[in-house]
Amino acid sequence: MRSELTLIREVAALDGVEGIGDDCAIITPRAGEDLLFTTDMLIEDVHFRRDTHSAAEVGHKALARGLSDIAAMGGDPRFCLLSLALAPWTGDKWIRAFYRGLLTLARRYKCPLSGGDLSHSDRLTCDIVVCGGVPKGRALRRDGARPGDRIYVSAPLGKPWQTHRKPNPRIELGRALRSRATSCMDLTDGLALDLHRLALASGVSAELDSIPVVRGSTEEQALHGGEDYELLFTLPARRKAPAGSIAVGRIAAGKPGSVLLAGTAVAPRGYDHLAR
Amino acid sequence: MRSELTLIREVAALDGVEGIGDDCAIITPRAGEDLLFTTDMLIEDVHFRRDTHSAAEVGHKALARGLSDIAAMGGDPRFCLLSLALAPWTGDKWIRAFYRGLLTLARRYKCPLSGGDLSHSDRLTCDIVVCGGVPKGRALRRDGARPGDRIYVSAPLGKPWQTHRKPNPRIELGRALRSRATSCMDLTDGLALDLHRLALASGVSAELDSIPVVRGSTEEQALHGGEDYELLFTLPARRKAPAGSIAVGRIAAGKPGSVLLAGTAVAPRGYDHLAR
Repeated sequence: MRSELTLIREVAALDGVEGIGDDCAIITPRAGEDLLFTTDMLIEDVHFRRDTHSAAEVGHKALARGLSDIAAMGGDPRFCLLSLALAPWTGDKWIRAFYRGLLTLARRYKCPLSGGDLSHSDRLTCDIVVCGGVPKGRALRRDGARPGDRIYVSAPLGKPWQTHRKPNPRIELGRALRSRATSCMDLTDGLALDLHRLALASGVSAELDSIPVVRGSTEEQALHGGEDYELLFTLPARRKAPAGSIAVGRIAAGKPGSVLLAGTAVAPRGYDHLAR
Repeated sequence: MRSELTLIREVAALDGVEGIGDDCAIITPRAGEDLLFTTDMLIEDVHFRRDTHSAAEVGHKALARGLSDIAAMGGDPRFCLLSLALAPWTGDKWIRAFYRGLLTLARRYKCPLSGGDLSHSDRLTCDIVVCGGVPKGRALRRDGARPGDRIYVSAPLGKPWQTHRKPNPRIELGRALRSRATSCMDLTDGLALDLHRLALASGVSAELDSIPVVRGSTEEQALHGGEDYELLFTLPARRKAPAGSIAVGRIAAGKPGSVLLAGTAVAPRGYDHLAR
């Protein structure tokens, strides 16, 4: 295992890393832009397993989770910070591959790693912070869905996290929705729970016609599973949806937060991050 | 144990918490301001122990670590984000007291909790992100120390982390140093290692006359211990130091990064966050 000083020096020299060295990262905001911030933990045996995820996949997924939140609000990635607690089993080779996975995705979305923290723990633990930019007042939120709006998802759902190892954040779609969608969020806890949250925030109800399920999965997984990293959004009925979007239902003026599937109430049950 | 939805709803209603609910926190930067970002982990049995730290002290310390980095760069706190992985032993009472400790400090420094993430792990793990603001181009950095500058610390050193449970971030001092200090950082890994880092970043050497040691501690702890959360800074010789500052030596044009104490080389050895 390298010492902390050596590891920081090596990381600071990697392609996709910028300006590490002071107590804080210094960022000069662009004029006319709001900034978006999200923070996401990735913990061994909770969000990934050593035997099913390669080091590069763990690095990819750590950043993809944060980028997906930026996409959900229509943001353009600006920079990221990484807190990393290494486990006793993480050797030099694993660490190098982890950073390679993370920084490959960071370069693709112009989201340089600009700082962070290093420590150690029993289980490998990452916490990624991603900052995004959006024209002032134009961030997509959860609270703008209105009765009559159509509900869409960006792809078929139900991908279990054990197999969905390199999720692709929907940055381009989020950007395209910026001036069109009335509400948006990313799907990480299952459609039932996430649509409940969106409907509750907007003070409306939701009526689903059908659930697009990814091949090899079930409607139960799509509704109550998690970690699809697709976008859930609403558009006024007259507005055309971006190519590839799948219409799944409509917003109504029923009980705030309630979700119906073909007329039957769906329980707001999904992935609970505190359940063990 | 509460469910995630219940806990998020309860936290969102606490005094000192702002705007939780979307996928990201939305921040409108102030004109003419650079933003500072720092991220700090606090891990059970690495940075605190259940038997020596109360829940409120853990909450206080989690935020104080981040605020100390903002102080080190002369920033005014703006907001914070908290990722929290709860351990199997953390019950409702502990969680409430933890947030009380964190939010009491957050309110004191006008640094509202604006978002975060919740999960679970074997050991309680926090990662705090603090954002600070500073007039454009005026952040204090490590690389501005020049030969002839005087070296100061903000208080006697050597407080061991086991007993130093509620560190006070030096926000007011950092702000006062903004237009005066040539370099600044916070002391978290011992004076020897931290001064080595500052001297190396500035391309200069450092000569210590004496080490101010806190009562009950030793020079060894002050030099190679850690977690004082005091400021280490340099001022041009002609410039008056803020009240309470302690002069400890001067910057010279020797080998970059070298530190001498009364003429003898001091090893850049201190707290290594990867050592177990």
